[in-house]
Parts: sequence; C-alpha cells; structure tokens
Amino acid sequence: MASRLKVAVAGANGETGQSIMDALLANSEQFEVFALARPASVNKPVLSAFSARGAIVKSVDFSATDALVVALTGMHVVISCLTMLHHKEQMALIEASSQAKVQRYVPSFFGPACPPRGVMKVREAKEDMLDRIKLLYLPYTVIDVGWWCQLSLPPLPSGRIQTKVEYALNEIMGDGEAPFAIVDKRDIGKYVARIIADPRTLNRMVFAYGEVWTQNHILDTLEEKSDERVVRQSLSKDDMENIISDAYKILATNPTDLEALSQVALTQYKYSIGIRGDNTPEHAKVNDFYKRDVGRGG
Amino acid sequence: MASRLKVAVAGANGETGQSIMDALLANSEQFEVFALARPASVNKPVLSAFSARGAIVKSVDFSATDALVVALTGMHVVISCLTMLHHKEQMALIEASSQAKVQRYVPSFFGPACPPRGVMKVREAKEDMLDRIKLLYLPYTVIDVGWWCQLSLPPLPSGRIQTKVEYALNEIMGDGEAPFAIVDKRDIGKYVARIIADPRTLNRMVFAYGEVWTQNHILDTLEEKSDERVVRQSLSKDDMENIISDAYKILATNPTDLEALSQVALTQYKYSIGIRGDNTPEHAKVNDFYKRDVGRGG
Repeated sequence: MASRLKVAVAGANGETGQSIMDALLANSEQFEVFALARPASVNKPVLSAFSARGAIVKSVDFSATDALVVALTGMHVVISCLTMLHHKEQMALIEASSQAKVQRYVPSFFGPACPPRGVMKVREAKEDMLDRIKLLYLPYTVIDVGWWCQLSLPPLPSGRIQTKVEYALNEIMGDGEAPFAIVDKRDIGKYVARIIADPRTLNRMVFAYGEVWTQNHILDTLEEKSDERVVRQSLSKDDMENIISDAYKILATNPTDLEALSQVALTQYKYSIGIRGDNTPEHAKVNDFYKRDVGRGG
Repeated sequence: MASRLKVAVAGANGETGQSIMDALLANSEQFEVFALARPASVNKPVLSAFSARGAIVKSVDFSATDALVVALTGMHVVISCLTMLHHKEQMALIEASSQAKVQRYVPSFFGPACPPRGVMKVREAKEDMLDRIKLLYLPYTVIDVGWWCQLSLPPLPSGRIQTKVEYALNEIMGDGEAPFAIVDKRDIGKYVARIIADPRTLNRMVFAYGEVWTQNHILDTLEEKSDERVVRQSLSKDDMENIISDAYKILATNPTDLEALSQVALTQYKYSIGIRGDNTPEHAKVNDFYKRDVGRGG
C-alpha cells in the first residue's frame, strides 16, 4: 500500500466532490483518500458515509495557514471542489499546498471549455487562481468537463424524468444548433481518477467529456423516445444580453447581490455554450487544452 | 514554390524583427517573406535591404482594419515584433489576422520565461493579448526566448567589447547565483523559422534558448578570458523594490511617463531573472510551455 497516491479533496460534499470521492474510494488500491472539511461540516452525513467507505475526514480551518500546511503535508494531490463563493478558502488552499510541496494541485475548474477572459466572469475568477498557481510554480492540472447531461434535459409533461428545473434546458439557446460537449456527472470522478494518476497531464489543461450534442438533437431525441412533447421556449442572443446587462445594473449598486451574480453566471454559461459555441472539444484543444486521452469512464 | 509558407512580419526593422527576417530570407525555398510597415517607414534603409534580398514590403495602416484584412489575406503566418509601445497596432493586427483567417499568429512575446501575472507589467500586457487571441480562436504560437547574451556582458575597462551600457549587467542582481537561460540575439530568427514550420507548436507556448548561466559565472569567465577586472556593482532585492516603488509613485501622477515605465520594465526583468529565478527551462516547462525541441540554430 506504500505506493498509493494520497489525495485530499476540499468540497467533497458538493456535486463534483461527491463524484470524485466515489471514484477515488472505488480505487482504494490506488488512492488513499482524505476529505478536508471545515469543523462545522465534519459531521455531515455525506462525509460520514465517505468515512465508512475508507476516507479519512480531516477537520481544517482554511484561515489558519500553518495548520493547513501541516494538514496537507505528505499529500500527493490536492483537489479543490470548492465553489467560487469560497474564493478566500481556495486561495488559502493554493498557498498552503505550495508551502506543503504538494505534487499536483487541481483547482476548482470542472466547468465547460471556455476562453480564459472576455466570456464568463466565473471563468475569469478561475483563471486568476491559475495565474496565482503559476506564480508559485505549484504543479497543477486544470480539468474542464462538458456540460452535465443531468442539466441538459427539460422536464417531461408526464413527470417521468426528474431534472433540476432551475437549470433545465427547455429554453432553446439561440437556434439550438450549437454543438456542445456533455458529460455524465457520475463520470466526472472516473475521469479525474485517471487524470491525476497520469504524468502526461501535469501542468496541463485537460478536457473531459462524453459526447457532443446540439440542443435540438437532444430535445428531438427525447420527444421521439418518450412520445411526449417538450415545451420549448426561446432564449435569443438579445434576451441573454439583456438579462446580463440588467443583472450588471443591480451589481453596480450591490456587488454582492447573490441573485444577480447567479443570473450573470448562468446566462453567461448559456451564451458561451449556445451562442458562441465555446464548449466543444475542438475549441478546448485550440485553447491549449490537452486532447482528451481518457476513455469514457465505465 | 507553391508550397512556400507566406509569412508577414510586423516590426521587421526592430532587433528581434531583423533577426527573424534574416532567418526567413535565408530560407527562401521555404518561406515567402513580407514585411508590414507603416507608410512613414516603408523607405527605411533596413527595409530596402530586406527588399533587395527578396522580401515584399507592404505598406499598411494599422488603424484601417478593412485594408489590413486585405493585406493579411492569404498569409499563413503573421509574426508581430512590435513593441509594447504599439499596443493599439498589435490589437489591430490580432483582429485583422483573425478576420483574414491567418493560420498561425505569433504575438510579440520574445521575452524571458515568466509567470503570466504578478511579476512583470510588460508580461501582463502580453498575456492580455494572448487572452484576446484565445477569445477569437486565432491559432497561435507564443515564443519566449532566453535573455539576450548581447545584454549579459558588462563593458570591459579596455573597451575591447562593446555592449549596450544601458542594459549592461555589471550590476550583480542579488547574489549573482540565479541561473538563467540566455540566447544569442542572432539565433532568435533561426529558432522562429523552425518553430513556425512545426505543427507541434501550434497553440502552444515555446521556449527557445541557447544555454543556462549564472551572472557570477559569466563575469568570472569574462575576467578569466580577458585578463581584465570588471567593475561589479551590487543591485539587491531591496534596491530593486525601491526603484520599482519610486517609479510607480511617478506613474501614479503621470501614467505615461516613459522613463518611469522603462524603469519599472527593466527592473522587473532583473527582479524576475535575478531574484525570483523565473527565466529557466525548468520554470518555462512548469508554466505550460513546450519543452524546447529545436536545436541551437547554427
């Protein structure tokens, strides 16, 4: 067991974090798995369940750098699945990982392929983190993933499929013809497990995805298979630009307005994917990403 | 001759530009060479000399986008050797190259290896250009080079070697022990000629250098070979930080003060190379650069 990779995951209880923990714990001959959790979160049921499957839950205070360095010392890989609402914690984790001489840091990207700046506010914040990582010469791997297929389906009138309606794509983005890469949320961890064990991905950006679809093709297929009609709404380029500029007006007076921030984030995702067509393997490659070299996790 | 690469160089009359033009014109079986020059510069002797060797000098107005697109249409490669004082012209060249569907754009980096942000103002401006290039999905190659060996020598008391005294390294940066990559200015074009013809370097950052030296080793060797004593001055980390902060005070009231800007730029180069030790092949690699895969141009 001496050659197992010690992997610490921050934000293990989130959606991406859970997918990654599942895959790492399923490969216990390869990985020794740690979940980093704030003292208030240590006893959450999801973490207890990971603990029961062999994970070591470490209570950490992200504002106490010295203790954080101690907690990370000896880790081969640190993976952040913290959200952008935890920017300070992420920056602390980067600093501490550098001081602890972690061999590979995976920042919390896990989003669709997108140019570094000029498209999405959320992406820009991630790129700022990457710049900091490069300034410290902290070895890294950036992992982008396709749009979750769990977020790519609209609800069916019969209620036969359950979707997260707040993200549901029954709004046709533009003409619905832009191809975009999708990934099954449950596969993300399987990709990550392969990527962090692969020396070729060190100091690289990697794009992990399953298949490429258009929105029209998804909805047509769903209607054909279900024999139901999906309610299609239209969300044009202009609609999106108006939503974004309205939200920016709110942010101009209240920069931390959560609803406006999430309107900007969500609509910029749709604009990037549906109008600009950024989230494709071809574009990911042009953006200095690595060619996908892991098979679909099975 | 149908398969020759059409290469357009902007800023062909500068130091890097001349090195590149020399190498491209020396490979006329491989390259069809164009120099882009503002109307006021078209008749400069250096451009006439390139013209006599087979280059086609194109007069271009960087503020007239449509005409610039026409001038660039059909070019396989566009190389910018414009300085940071021509930011507007560089951005125009990027936009026009994208519209003209240029197959590879080489932005004006040609500087030492350095993290993207947080070290050098000049580097940050270059990275902003690269972000724009990525936003447009304009295929690119970024070429960083070692510090010029022509700038790495101090003057000798006898006057036997001529150096550009304003850059001369008789100031020992820190303890003089930081290794840094150097390149012979005359070799830059030879590297560039190989890099732009290599499909592996598309959408990559490449680091081209000749050898790695420390400043003490350079000066010791020079003294030994010349049997002269070099006047060594000391430039400590604190000295540099003071020079930079003094210059920023001037820039706070006059943001375009050229002398303060050049003090910042020059001292940040020295800080990056001599104190942080950024300009090494190892760091270039960590920063997602390509391993050098062109031999020393001979």
